Amino acid sequence: MENQKRTTIYDIAKKLNLNASSVSRALNGSSNVSEKTKELILKTAKELNYRQNSIASNLRKGENRTIGVVVPRINQNFFSNVIAGIEEVTYQKGYNLIICQSNESYQREIKCVDTLINQHVSAIFLSISADFEDNEHLKSVGEHQIKLIQFDRVDDELDTFKVLCGNEEASFEAVEHLLTQGYRRIALLEGPQNLNIFRQRKKGYLSALAKHGLSLLPELIVENAWTRELGAAATEKLLALPQPPDAIFASTSDFAALGVLDVAQARGLKVPQELGIIGFSNEAFTEITQPSITTIDQFSKEIGKNVANLYFQKLSKTASSETNKIVSIRPKLIIRGSTLRNGI
Amino acid sequence: MENQKRTTIYDIAKKLNLNASSVSRALNGSSNVSEKTKELILKTAKELNYRQNSIASNLRKGENRTIGVVVPRINQNFFSNVIAGIEEVTYQKGYNLIICQSNESYQREIKCVDTLINQHVSAIFLSISADFEDNEHLKSVGEHQIKLIQFDRVDDELDTFKVLCGNEEASFEAVEHLLTQGYRRIALLEGPQNLNIFRQRKKGYLSALAKHGLSLLPELIVENAWTRELGAAATEKLLALPQPPDAIFASTSDFAALGVLDVAQARGLKVPQELGIIGFSNEAFTEITQPSITTIDQFSKEIGKNVANLYFQKLSKTASSETNKIVSIRPKLIIRGSTLRNGI
Repeated sequence: MENQKRTTIYDIAKKLNLNASSVSRALNGSSNVSEKTKELILKTAKELNYRQNSIASNLRKGENRTIGVVVPRINQNFFSNVIAGIEEVTYQKGYNLIICQSNESYQREIKCVDTLINQHVSAIFLSISADFEDNEHLKSVGEHQIKLIQFDRVDDELDTFKVLCGNEEASFEAVEHLLTQGYRRIALLEGPQNLNIFRQRKKGYLSALAKHGLSLLPELIVENAWTRELGAAATEKLLALPQPPDAIFASTSDFAALGVLDVAQARGLKVPQELGIIGFSNEAFTEITQPSITTIDQFSKEIGKNVANLYFQKLSKTASSETNKIVSIRPKLIIRGSTLRNGI
Repeated sequence: MENQKRTTIYDIAKKLNLNASSVSRALNGSSNVSEKTKELILKTAKELNYRQNSIASNLRKGENRTIGVVVPRINQNFFSNVIAGIEEVTYQKGYNLIICQSNESYQREIKCVDTLINQHVSAIFLSISADFEDNEHLKSVGEHQIKLIQFDRVDDELDTFKVLCGNEEASFEAVEHLLTQGYRRIALLEGPQNLNIFRQRKKGYLSALAKHGLSLLPELIVENAWTRELGAAATEKLLALPQPPDAIFASTSDFAALGVLDVAQARGLKVPQELGIIGFSNEAFTEITQPSITTIDQFSKEIGKNVANLYFQKLSKTASSETNKIVSIRPKLIIRGSTLRNGI
């Protein structure tokens, strides 16, 4: 080889006196470059020993190498990291990603799925909205020969590949950690019970109490407190009880946990001494608050990578029909200042 | 009318013994419902006096009412809020949104634009990536009869509708605020100067210094410090100067400002007494840090709404050809604990 430096698209562009973006497009199989130019670029790329992932496969005709992702909200740490994980894999494979958000609305979720079907994507990766009602729109995905993979919030009835997060175990571990720190009246902020993830988190809470011989106190469970404001309102309500809780597990979100911390600080309650707090999802701010908030890391980027990998395994002809249809990623409890009153 | 309650899709579904999602799809003009069922649903909707925005227009044939949005990253407060603003308008108009992220890579930006062109979207709303090089891929958007609107980070050369944020004024105001608080050696963390927004922010910084008769000290300017880690590294460097700064304006991002705060706290420097800090974008965490961080609110949701409204104005036949092609949204300085050492 003339030189050891790896050839870039800029070298090709320079040699042909073209724009780098034309070169990139030709190599990515775009139809927005003339066939003649494309040929010239491919020839030069070969001469210069240019390597790119899946050039050849990108150029296969008649395939729409686009994958659609539907998430409730793009601005939550969990979902944006899942998407980052998906993109890491799909980009390598030469696939493009288009993202739709349902804004937690079932109606919008149906529209998102319809949009993606109409765009003839190759696959849809989806996490259902909070007011999910029925799965007819998801069934129609398969009818259009589009692969569907569900992740995190899934419709259990539907027999698709799924990537799940070990919500029950994580929740169990969180509550058990509170118990070992000496908390005894542990309140639960619970999410909409039509979603699998919140049912599982509640189950983990109940099992931990049961294991330690504590009975369930219904007044310590507050429904649907999953924003900062709702978390704060739930805390006001809980602290007004004749026997208030000594810890609050915001199984809904870190935002709700932040609302709990707001109220504790406004009332001059010492955290973790007088009130323990645990959130869910490891949002960046949980490290910044004072005290920092104990939470659960769901390894969201890993979930995304697993979703995309499942899809490509499914595509590959060597995959056995026995390939496991459900992958579960085990989350991790991140112990921080908001619960650590007795040392580890 | 038989009753005063507004008819919902559930009433229609109940009457016809269908799923709500079938009804929703028929009303949204989906091709995934049989023509016969669609007709029945539309007839019943009319009988029950069902109203939906733009049912009729949704059913127009042959139009792909899908808009593509390209942003550098979806997980930044600024961009996710712009998208929320866009969606608020497009959803009302019966348009669907698909989102692509360039991950700050020019190569990926080209791929995003190509993907959206191949998906035959009606319009592309775009904010360029950090390593933007040339605008050939943007020119090709117009060649495919797709409307292009640029926002925030734009290519000035390209004559498209643009929605801008008053970066220069905001930056000027931030630095002037520091000066009125008695800070004199004000460092600037600057972003990539190939992006209009960072050039403008630097310009605002320079004008404020000039207005107050202060000369530019090149050692107080640090390039490309726009993550928490890079903000921290820049601060270490600045504080090691023989004459360190008494304030740092992280014009790049709030994440960089957080990095500045990290280092100040690690060194036991008092904020705001010994070091003033200003960020950019009003990320949620700037309110949570102790002290909270002075920053600039760009009214990102408003920017999004303006982008979408510009598109629909442009479509409307009554719009004058004189419609202003550039809309500028004025940001606001949010003064918080990290700079307030002398009272307002």
